[in-house]
Amino acid sequence: MDNLKNKIREVQDWPKKGINFKDITTLLQDKDTFKKIVDSLAEFFKDEKIDKVVGIDARGFLIASPLAYKLNAGLVIVRKPGKLPFSTIQQEYTLEYGKDVLQMHTDAISRGEKVILIDDLIATGGTAMATCNLIEKLGGKVAGVGCIIDLPFLSGSKKLKDKGYEVKSLISYDSE
Amino acid sequence: MDNLKNKIREVQDWPKKGINFKDITTLLQDKDTFKKIVDSLAEFFKDEKIDKVVGIDARGFLIASPLAYKLNAGLVIVRKPGKLPFSTIQQEYTLEYGKDVLQMHTDAISRGEKVILIDDLIATGGTAMATCNLIEKLGGKVAGVGCIIDLPFLSGSKKLKDKGYEVKSLISYDSE
Repeated sequence: MDNLKNKIREVQDWPKKGINFKDITTLLQDKDTFKKIVDSLAEFFKDEKIDKVVGIDARGFLIASPLAYKLNAGLVIVRKPGKLPFSTIQQEYTLEYGKDVLQMHTDAISRGEKVILIDDLIATGGTAMATCNLIEKLGGKVAGVGCIIDLPFLSGSKKLKDKGYEVKSLISYDSE
Repeated sequence: MDNLKNKIREVQDWPKKGINFKDITTLLQDKDTFKKIVDSLAEFFKDEKIDKVVGIDARGFLIASPLAYKLNAGLVIVRKPGKLPFSTIQQEYTLEYGKDVLQMHTDAISRGEKVILIDDLIATGGTAMATCNLIEKLGGKVAGVGCIIDLPFLSGSKKLKDKGYEVKSLISYDSE
């Protein structure tokens, strides 16, 4: 799906110097491209009888939600502390400098459910790995991780695969 | 759709004392209810040939995105300052105490496009009104505002209707 790359806007030095940001808003606002993205990700998982699709705040919501709709699955959200109103479980993960925490409602997933995690982009894989841990803490089975963009040179997708998770992406960049 | 109300979790005194928070995560994670919400909102606008669906960060993304997919429209996002990487327009709006700002990419909407705004809940209508202004600044025509929950006692939907916007909601609460 390399023609999708032409639809992605690259923004130099954002959010900080040296980063060539992949802006997916140009994909989303083009109706045919948006539909193609959702349908292509759904195709990977359509025969798996997925119970829940998990999206990570906030860009992940944009992709996880229509995928849950398309796969006729429930939608679960993962957010930073203080954003979910009911009782939560949480998972710490490491950032380039320091740590952060993600939370999920305790009733979001039932034991034995088949769950996929969908995000816009996988870089170092920290949030994706933390989210897989949250899913498993509640007894869910991670049936796969899907994203629009994989940045394999940052090793996130490799780390996920090494843990046994299937990773599906639509576009991959070989370098920054 | 009053049976939807039974699926909403009410959380007392969250995020602060005196607020009876309407938690929609229980709707989203039930696949049949989630599908019904998206289909019911889409029904309001299906004959309008909508070009773009606008969602407000972050819970609004959860509803706007599958609606854009279902209506075969483009998806546009509105976020707080510092979150959108490309050039933006912005709109200030008033909060209970103080002010806040919402931004939209300058290329998100083209002149003459038919646009709907979708959010999870309309309370005082501040963010919805600011978003309608952003859509119109770019030359878009606001074909309607859709939400899951309307809180008419906070007057947001009335203010929007007084400005000539059509407002569609699935559930309404008469009081806190």
